[in-house]
Amino acid sequence: MNIYDHESTALVTDLYELTMMQGYFFYRKNETAVFDMFYRTQPFAGGYAVFAGLEPMVRAVLNFRFGQEELRYLSGLKLFTPAFLDFLATLRFRGDIYAVEEGEVVFPREPLVRVHATIIEAQMIESLLLNVINFQTLIATKTARIVKAAAGRSVSEFGLRRAHGIDGALSASRAAHIGGAASTSNLLAGKVFGIPVQGTMAHSWVMAFDAECTAFMKYASLYPEHTVLLVDTYNTLTKGIPAAIRVFRGLKRKGITGFGLRLDSGDLEYLSKQARRMLDSAGLPEAKIVASNELDEYIIEQLVRKGSPIDIFGVGSRLVTGYGDPALNGIYKLAARGKGKRFVPGIKLSDNPEKITDPFVKNVLRFYGDNDSPMGDLIVIESELSRYARMSRLRQPVRMYNSEFINESVELRGCRDARPLLRQVVKNGVVIAPFPGLGRLRAQTELRLAALHPSYRRLLNPRKYPVSITKKLRDMKINMIEKYR
Amino acid sequence: MNIYDHESTALVTDLYELTMMQGYFFYRKNETAVFDMFYRTQPFAGGYAVFAGLEPMVRAVLNFRFGQEELRYLSGLKLFTPAFLDFLATLRFRGDIYAVEEGEVVFPREPLVRVHATIIEAQMIESLLLNVINFQTLIATKTARIVKAAAGRSVSEFGLRRAHGIDGALSASRAAHIGGAASTSNLLAGKVFGIPVQGTMAHSWVMAFDAECTAFMKYASLYPEHTVLLVDTYNTLTKGIPAAIRVFRGLKRKGITGFGLRLDSGDLEYLSKQARRMLDSAGLPEAKIVASNELDEYIIEQLVRKGSPIDIFGVGSRLVTGYGDPALNGIYKLAARGKGKRFVPGIKLSDNPEKITDPFVKNVLRFYGDNDSPMGDLIVIESELSRYARMSRLRQPVRMYNSEFINESVELRGCRDARPLLRQVVKNGVVIAPFPGLGRLRAQTELRLAALHPSYRRLLNPRKYPVSITKKLRDMKINMIEKYR
Repeated sequence: MNIYDHESTALVTDLYELTMMQGYFFYRKNETAVFDMFYRTQPFAGGYAVFAGLEPMVRAVLNFRFGQEELRYLSGLKLFTPAFLDFLATLRFRGDIYAVEEGEVVFPREPLVRVHATIIEAQMIESLLLNVINFQTLIATKTARIVKAAAGRSVSEFGLRRAHGIDGALSASRAAHIGGAASTSNLLAGKVFGIPVQGTMAHSWVMAFDAECTAFMKYASLYPEHTVLLVDTYNTLTKGIPAAIRVFRGLKRKGITGFGLRLDSGDLEYLSKQARRMLDSAGLPEAKIVASNELDEYIIEQLVRKGSPIDIFGVGSRLVTGYGDPALNGIYKLAARGKGKRFVPGIKLSDNPEKITDPFVKNVLRFYGDNDSPMGDLIVIESELSRYARMSRLRQPVRMYNSEFINESVELRGCRDARPLLRQVVKNGVVIAPFPGLGRLRAQTELRLAALHPSYRRLLNPRKYPVSITKKLRDMKINMIEKYR
Repeated sequence: MNIYDHESTALVTDLYELTMMQGYFFYRKNETAVFDMFYRTQPFAGGYAVFAGLEPMVRAVLNFRFGQEELRYLSGLKLFTPAFLDFLATLRFRGDIYAVEEGEVVFPREPLVRVHATIIEAQMIESLLLNVINFQTLIATKTARIVKAAAGRSVSEFGLRRAHGIDGALSASRAAHIGGAASTSNLLAGKVFGIPVQGTMAHSWVMAFDAECTAFMKYASLYPEHTVLLVDTYNTLTKGIPAAIRVFRGLKRKGITGFGLRLDSGDLEYLSKQARRMLDSAGLPEAKIVASNELDEYIIEQLVRKGSPIDIFGVGSRLVTGYGDPALNGIYKLAARGKGKRFVPGIKLSDNPEKITDPFVKNVLRFYGDNDSPMGDLIVIESELSRYARMSRLRQPVRMYNSEFINESVELRGCRDARPLLRQVVKNGVVIAPFPGLGRLRAQTELRLAALHPSYRRLLNPRKYPVSITKKLRDMKINMIEKYR
């Protein structure tokens, strides 16, 4: 049930896309348009985001087609002409898509996806593209924050019951795995994406038996290798843990040691320390402690800092809903449109300088220092790429503007390499680069995050990563602002 | 693409449900279990919630079946025996479901869904039930708050691009309509649920033409009856509105008056007042003003209070993500289990008194005063229903405990009627009551919210609605706590 592959994603769009498309159709606007997808502010007041959702987005876009059922519905709205509906019946996305790799670390204002297509096709995919990328990037980012806070302990995603619908859960499991979660409780995500699945037991298991210790023993005898006992149904310290210890000792006598207990309420620092002490005194140092209950990066960081002996964090609601910032504010704006053989830049103005878009066909060049550590990003006009890449090979300093409206700039020095972030993934409606598997994406993301200086990864008040536009882009933008104002 | 009807919802579940189910299967636990779904705290620090998601949840539960593909995946996990997998192949939900009506106003701790089934079947549906009900109730509640703040102006849901996946958007559109949104931008929601669809235009339409006024004229000539012009691409007051006025005048000369403009950035109070003045001076009092841009109930309430002449609020991200509280903390707990011909109560204890569950087979009796206004709710043992309902007919006062752990109580007086909230909707796995259409649900919800005293509907610091358990339930609970502690 990978719903992105579903035939009818054609209606996963906003009405205005269709009314605009009919307008472009009617006025014969066949020129190529270039759209950028980017976001304006860091989610969670953090220092970075982890880009995710590319493969599902591309699959959905390439499956975009209006079937008879969809056309009948559209026809019933009395807004569309038969000629346009006939045109929709054969419409496919035949354009090009350039994108950042999934799992890449990204920053505000950088184009993450760039679409070249007829303006009709480019408009057709807007809502779906934003829906998938905004959500998965949000959750990959949230998870990266949580995994960082866990400082090496394992994080398991348990969010299905609080996620936003079935697909809200499924997509969250995928993005969480890219962001660093080791496993999920969601079986569908296990099946569809091959993510390792994990689980313990619910209070109902304990309550279904007359005594807690019976419930524990029955479970252990059925799943000796997977015995993680939930100890807080009646009283964690006086009942649950002592009963669990009896069961663990029985398992250990049989040579089985993969057991553990789960704390799901109360003060997790206090209880985990007590539990560890009780387990160790009982000669069970191998028993693992799993903790859950409305955890997020802040609570986990505090638990870790206080030395809470928790081995695995089960994180649900606050991970899969992007608690604190439940929407990434990604947008999709026209950056250029074809006029004959060339492109003319497009710009959207605003009273807020940060809301003025960057015009034209752009790429992002990332400069790396020692150990492949990102030092700064330069948003370049695509045709400027080779020149700036050469500068980095020649170890020339790169000028970075703090803002294009202030004449202040700094120079990036000591760069060892520069590589563009946007690469073509779709050409004329066909995928041209294989998508990496989820496991590889997860491993790559871990390396990328590790290469990012820790000051950019601080949970609170992180350092601001340098992102600038080139001199040429800056001049073009300022000229356009003057022209339209 | 109603994904709740999809065949493979069987894997929309957490791994632990399946491991527990195998345990119940292995230990031949065939007795009936009673589970309650309820939530503990009000979302958005509000005074009520609007229950939603029942029809999609029931449909999904009744479609729960493990096909060959799902069984193959489960078999590969090396956790399940062939006997159990064979059993799963024919397993269906054959139990009973009692539930509150969709659109009903509900409060913490009240059972909203009560499931009677073998413990295996009841456990099987937990994750899916919680996923659907938690999310849709959250969004219906958020929307009711937003609609209240809009004080009679129309609210349109525009959230697809920021929702949590495709289904996060689709389910949000459904719940938002129940909660009072007039329309959605999401075409799929229009098709699947028959919700009215609405839309304006994007900045890209304006940027696709050489001049803003050209873009406006072209749009108006194509959609004269649906001309809502987005006026902030270059400069709202000096460019966008003057250009829109020229177009509106042209339409008005032809006798068309259903036009309007949309403000999507800047200070919406200031701009809407300026826009209204400019439109009125131009002899266009019929022109509507639509406002959007990260709106929520607090911003809308302030705009309304300041007299901003906005006719329609377009609300996206903050509605469909439940901004501020993106997960309803609904849970599903064993309340009783069958022993021979009777039920024995089940309880889950906790160090936090409010986290101790209410045992046994319960219903909620709502007491109404004048104008069918809810006065208080009593959580009763199902067998106590008729006695308490009779008390209300005899106008006897009803005792309400502030907490079962404090001997303080108040009496509800002047009740004119009492009606139970939980009604049976599924019997032996078959739907026994037709589901009302979405339009009717929306209308009913509006009436129910209007009947609720305004003090319970305040956005900030609302009055606490009285919810109590009966004396008998209170005694049962306290006895069980003593027994298990």
